[in-house]
Amino acid sequence: VASVQRDLNPTPGGADQGGAATNRRILLTRLPAGRLSADVFALDAAPTPVPGPGEVLCRTLYISIDPANRAWMQGRTYRARLGTNEVMPANTLCEVVGGDLAPGTLVLAQAGWQDYAVLPVSGLDPVPEAPALRQYLGALGITGMAAYFGLHNVARVQEGDTVVISAAAGATGHLAGQLAAIHGCRVVGIAGSRAKNRWLVAELGFDGAVDYHDADWRDQVRGLCADGIDVYFDNVGGPVLEAILPLMNVHGRIACCGAIASYDTGTPDTRVAGIPGRLVNSRLRMEGFLARDFKATWASARQDIAAWLAAGEVRSVIEVVDGLDRTPEALIGLLNGDNVGKRVIRVTATRLDGSPVT
Amino acid sequence: VASVQRDLNPTPGGADQGGAATNRRILLTRLPAGRLSADVFALDAAPTPVPGPGEVLCRTLYISIDPANRAWMQGRTYRARLGTNEVMPANTLCEVVGGDLAPGTLVLAQAGWQDYAVLPVSGLDPVPEAPALRQYLGALGITGMAAYFGLHNVARVQEGDTVVISAAAGATGHLAGQLAAIHGCRVVGIAGSRAKNRWLVAELGFDGAVDYHDADWRDQVRGLCADGIDVYFDNVGGPVLEAILPLMNVHGRIACCGAIASYDTGTPDTRVAGIPGRLVNSRLRMEGFLARDFKATWASARQDIAAWLAAGEVRSVIEVVDGLDRTPEALIGLLNGDNVGKRVIRVTATRLDGSPVT
Repeated sequence: VASVQRDLNPTPGGADQGGAATNRRILLTRLPAGRLSADVFALDAAPTPVPGPGEVLCRTLYISIDPANRAWMQGRTYRARLGTNEVMPANTLCEVVGGDLAPGTLVLAQAGWQDYAVLPVSGLDPVPEAPALRQYLGALGITGMAAYFGLHNVARVQEGDTVVISAAAGATGHLAGQLAAIHGCRVVGIAGSRAKNRWLVAELGFDGAVDYHDADWRDQVRGLCADGIDVYFDNVGGPVLEAILPLMNVHGRIACCGAIASYDTGTPDTRVAGIPGRLVNSRLRMEGFLARDFKATWASARQDIAAWLAAGEVRSVIEVVDGLDRTPEALIGLLNGDNVGKRVIRVTATRLDGSPVT
Repeated sequence: VASVQRDLNPTPGGADQGGAATNRRILLTRLPAGRLSADVFALDAAPTPVPGPGEVLCRTLYISIDPANRAWMQGRTYRARLGTNEVMPANTLCEVVGGDLAPGTLVLAQAGWQDYAVLPVSGLDPVPEAPALRQYLGALGITGMAAYFGLHNVARVQEGDTVVISAAAGATGHLAGQLAAIHGCRVVGIAGSRAKNRWLVAELGFDGAVDYHDADWRDQVRGLCADGIDVYFDNVGGPVLEAILPLMNVHGRIACCGAIASYDTGTPDTRVAGIPGRLVNSRLRMEGFLARDFKATWASARQDIAAWLAAGEVRSVIEVVDGLDRTPEALIGLLNGDNVGKRVIRVTATRLDGSPVT
């Protein structure tokens, strides 16, 4: 599997070694007023919960760190606004300890920032063993599915399209760009540093990449998209979306995957100019989506992506941060743009059967 | 045909009686700085032009008055920004005087605000004789096509959908509402006066209508759409679009037909809040369109609409203003919301063969 691990701390430090008596949990103690800071979280320990009928005790192996975690604190999104003094929710990869599924079964779950969670079996998504389990939060998980279905089912990319991707070095962006290239598209990324952009072009095969901190970044995008833009895979919204709109070709398509630009603030500015005028004039389609809306066909998408990974045609980069206690700083860093590719927390280095958490 | 004529001046006053020697033209002498006023236009007279090979001399019967006429003055839209000291462009219904089509042939054309125009035959859309010719600028013309294809091909309305329509008493809106009702939808209109709204409900069969001047109009819409909004047929953009976004159901669709709210100004505010966040959270699709994009299937849409008109299931309301010289005031009034249904200028009361312009 052509995955790349960027271990930020190669020696698992704070990782739980599997004691089942207590459950370390990170609570959201209050909603942040401005930018996210670590003091809104608190680590505690509670008794490990016990599953009832139809439930499963899940042990968290990996926690997915996502920009959307911050958006959930702002208000109602596609889920209810987060309450306080509850475990911070998150997508996770878990193994089953007990209850109504076989022990050791791997499941994608919403276990949140804690070692253990009791969850209804109906909400779990069992996945088979794999060489790199962490890919279930990367190319084979929600971010990979977002890239795949966003491009194919929402933007409906065609061979020869010029595709622009924002947050291009992020979890979804770096995959979306590679999938678009496989589809025969010209791919231009927008990311937040020269280092990220060199990497996108040199390592991931993007045709070009632009740093939005450059004063002339709009001109650079225009220069790289001489035939206009057919598809914009938007992870950020805000001023970048606003600047891309006039560059879209007639009948262009904008797949709205996220709005990171407005997440890490208490006063989000979500006003984008040119709506709906530019949509009418250029007959643009803007469509929001969530990967889960396409769950019925995840299996075949996973097969496609797994084959590309195995053939080395797609690289799925995952940053592993070891230790549940480092989850807040990992999210704060992600919101500052520190990550390259997908960032995950490895909660424990060892499976219940003693094998490593790959 | 169940059309209604609201003659604003029943006696054709300034209408040209068919003299072919001179061509009265209304020029756009400068681009308006703020709201449109009559002093940016000037009436002149020029020799009637002569068609060359591949061209046709067209005689204007009706001029379509459209909010988009004003948008064209703001800058590049789906056409180049208007130049000055040129004939004000407009969609028209003409009859052929001479050239490469048979005299008397009816054509939809871009003849503009003048008695005569020489146009390439390739740009003309011949239409058959009909009991009410003016319907070719109404239900059987671009506005009818916009209502039909916007609902069916862009919004993809389904039976049982709740459909909200802005500028609901306007040319496209009053048709779109009736077509949605035929399709088995619940239809709620938003318009600018109580009189318009009474008419929409009592005469056109809307399930409800709201005056956006009311302070609580958002609550009124919410109350009329107890199951949320599945489709928003947007003619206006701006604050109304912004207010509708939070009321849209998951997987709702917004057909972007126009942005009247930002047309009649030199400093359009086109910033709409909630983009793209609400699109993502509720997985909304916003899509801009022009009727002309669907030209390949206009014929079958016209058949459908003509049958509904004949059966009295759709009423296509057309306000006829007589006299080329009244075109500026007719457009200014339209931008002030004075119109109900489609507004047209009847340039001449008599066809070349002496029959009336119906």
